[in-house]
Amino acid sequence: MRRVAIIGVGMTKFGEHWERGYRDLVVEAGVKAIEDAGISGEKIDAGFVGTMASGRLIGQEHVGALIADYMGLNPIPVTRVEGACASGGIALRQAYTAVASGVADIVVAGGVEKMTDLDTSGVSDALGGAGDQEWELFMGATFPGLYALMARRHMLEYGTTEEMLAAVAVKNHKHGAKNPYAQYQNEITIETVLKSKVVADPLKVFDCSPITDGAAGVILAPLDIAYSYTKKPIEIVASAQASDTISLSARKSLTEIAATRIAAQKAYKDAKVTPKDIDVVEVHDCFTIAEIMAIEDLGFFKKGEGGKASLEGRTTFGGDVVVNTSGGLKAAGHPVGATGIKQAVEITWQLRGQAEGRQVKDAEYGLSHNVGGSGATAVVHIYKKAY
Amino acid sequence: MRRVAIIGVGMTKFGEHWERGYRDLVVEAGVKAIEDAGISGEKIDAGFVGTMASGRLIGQEHVGALIADYMGLNPIPVTRVEGACASGGIALRQAYTAVASGVADIVVAGGVEKMTDLDTSGVSDALGGAGDQEWELFMGATFPGLYALMARRHMLEYGTTEEMLAAVAVKNHKHGAKNPYAQYQNEITIETVLKSKVVADPLKVFDCSPITDGAAGVILAPLDIAYSYTKKPIEIVASAQASDTISLSARKSLTEIAATRIAAQKAYKDAKVTPKDIDVVEVHDCFTIAEIMAIEDLGFFKKGEGGKASLEGRTTFGGDVVVNTSGGLKAAGHPVGATGIKQAVEITWQLRGQAEGRQVKDAEYGLSHNVGGSGATAVVHIYKKAY
Repeated sequence: MRRVAIIGVGMTKFGEHWERGYRDLVVEAGVKAIEDAGISGEKIDAGFVGTMASGRLIGQEHVGALIADYMGLNPIPVTRVEGACASGGIALRQAYTAVASGVADIVVAGGVEKMTDLDTSGVSDALGGAGDQEWELFMGATFPGLYALMARRHMLEYGTTEEMLAAVAVKNHKHGAKNPYAQYQNEITIETVLKSKVVADPLKVFDCSPITDGAAGVILAPLDIAYSYTKKPIEIVASAQASDTISLSARKSLTEIAATRIAAQKAYKDAKVTPKDIDVVEVHDCFTIAEIMAIEDLGFFKKGEGGKASLEGRTTFGGDVVVNTSGGLKAAGHPVGATGIKQAVEITWQLRGQAEGRQVKDAEYGLSHNVGGSGATAVVHIYKKAY
Repeated sequence: MRRVAIIGVGMTKFGEHWERGYRDLVVEAGVKAIEDAGISGEKIDAGFVGTMASGRLIGQEHVGALIADYMGLNPIPVTRVEGACASGGIALRQAYTAVASGVADIVVAGGVEKMTDLDTSGVSDALGGAGDQEWELFMGATFPGLYALMARRHMLEYGTTEEMLAAVAVKNHKHGAKNPYAQYQNEITIETVLKSKVVADPLKVFDCSPITDGAAGVILAPLDIAYSYTKKPIEIVASAQASDTISLSARKSLTEIAATRIAAQKAYKDAKVTPKDIDVVEVHDCFTIAEIMAIEDLGFFKKGEGGKASLEGRTTFGGDVVVNTSGGLKAAGHPVGATGIKQAVEITWQLRGQAEGRQVKDAEYGLSHNVGGSGATAVVHIYKKAY
């Protein structure tokens, strides 16, 4: 197994791109990543792209071939992977594996979703396919509903409050306000969140990530040749993925995402680090409760203490660990297939010292955490400054 | 890179499984493959599954996690890959890569599609997502229409006739009649085909593969440990994938699938064999013209001579090479995501000498060929008897 590094990154602004299509978004992100790596397209040996629901959202499957075509990469293989909202993280993991194994040298990993071509009820229905269609979606359970169950249980067991949930959204908007790629670049207050419309009690509109269009890409290479392309390679020191039951009702616990815990344990072991070593983290905050569970399951805080830690400012600049400098899914937006790759882009910028107004000082280790559905898939990557 | 072998295979009967769901099909095929390999589920390190359009066909995405759950494989990663009708071949290729690289030892590759839960117009629309949604499907071009264009051009350039197309269907039904897993196990005549209803001139109903439910699975292991599980390991000696334009209109030629040619050239080179060495072949005959182009592009016959060769019986028992002993997509059926894996199952049975009434005598090398869309993706695998 070879060591693997990120040599180029790029992304579109996340937001409602009414005037643009799936293909435009992919090409913009891909070209930016290729330019950032300073390579020509012919150098690329293979590609992987994460897209969750293009069949439902834009009537297009076979997006690997579509992207190979529109990026001018033919005839190299470009493969679509899908694991609901973890599709981007899975694409990164497949690309990492291809380079690590020696199957390919230069590999592009992309993520993209075009969500605003359908009305919101169509989008909700498509997203429902991330859960158990027969036992959840068909019965009327939407994703806000599923995460609301987890939030209620977390509140009951650990005393987590609606203010603590709101604090996650407030912090992520504060970070997103410094990210020119974020869908929402405005700050909000706890009061804004608490007074916003209830979606699935206790979750309100401002506890939920939005519907977003966007694409992101990263270029990977073996570490030993990465230095010939960039002065600032970022090594991927661990890539782990785990599965859990598709249906929430079959889980042993509603207050943890076991797949996150299992993937994180493997990633820390492979990278030979502990949570204390991590300086900057992108977690999967599809809902505010998801960030609270994530920072617990990833080992940054004890189970049950994530809410309190968020309210006390321990997850932002000056705290124990800086979480979601990009603004997270909440403020940066959540084009589902693109999110896992966007996380890698943000961590790369942080470890290169290019995150401008939201830079974590002297960041050496980063971690990204991407979840599919209500936790049936979790993907964790750990990154290290390799210069 | 380690050498990789198939140690177990299994599949459902292909057909219209009105009374069964996606999950039932997956579990049947998976359990059969695991039993055939003589392993326990805990031995499995990872899984890849090819499914094209579960979001459209059954409202379910995130099928990697679903399958991990229903197969009792949690918490190992199971990853869905999608490349239209080549999804199964891509799943096999990813599983092959995982084992070859040393990322995993025992890996399951599956393919599944449940197509009969929608009406045929819904299925046609979902399948249209394999082509170019903006430039083909939206304009009304269906897949029979796209392949009809190729057929017309092949007839014009090479004198291919409707009888030659029909001969492919007749031969595949003859083979399928000997395959207990085939959707159609009845023989037909040239006249049946020529008199059947026109779908997209010159293609008639009997020139087209059907709508099918089904699943198939194979278990892979490093060759050196394969012998501890089976006396008859089948080595995968090459795995290649190539891309072409998503839209037919952008191709240089309408009478070849360039992605097939490119993938095949790489596969022959990696396997150090020529078409002459191959004894048994499963090709992607989604339409009869597709088989004619495939046997040319794979190098078994010169460009333009595939139709004549088919009519002359050179692609069946006693001919130059035996093509589609399973009955192909035409007679065995075409549950899109499952087809690429079914091909591997059939080749394994052939190389083990377990194909009963359709056995190719002393088969030593096999090849499978899986196409996505109108040829934007092609995947070629070459297999060798390793005992």
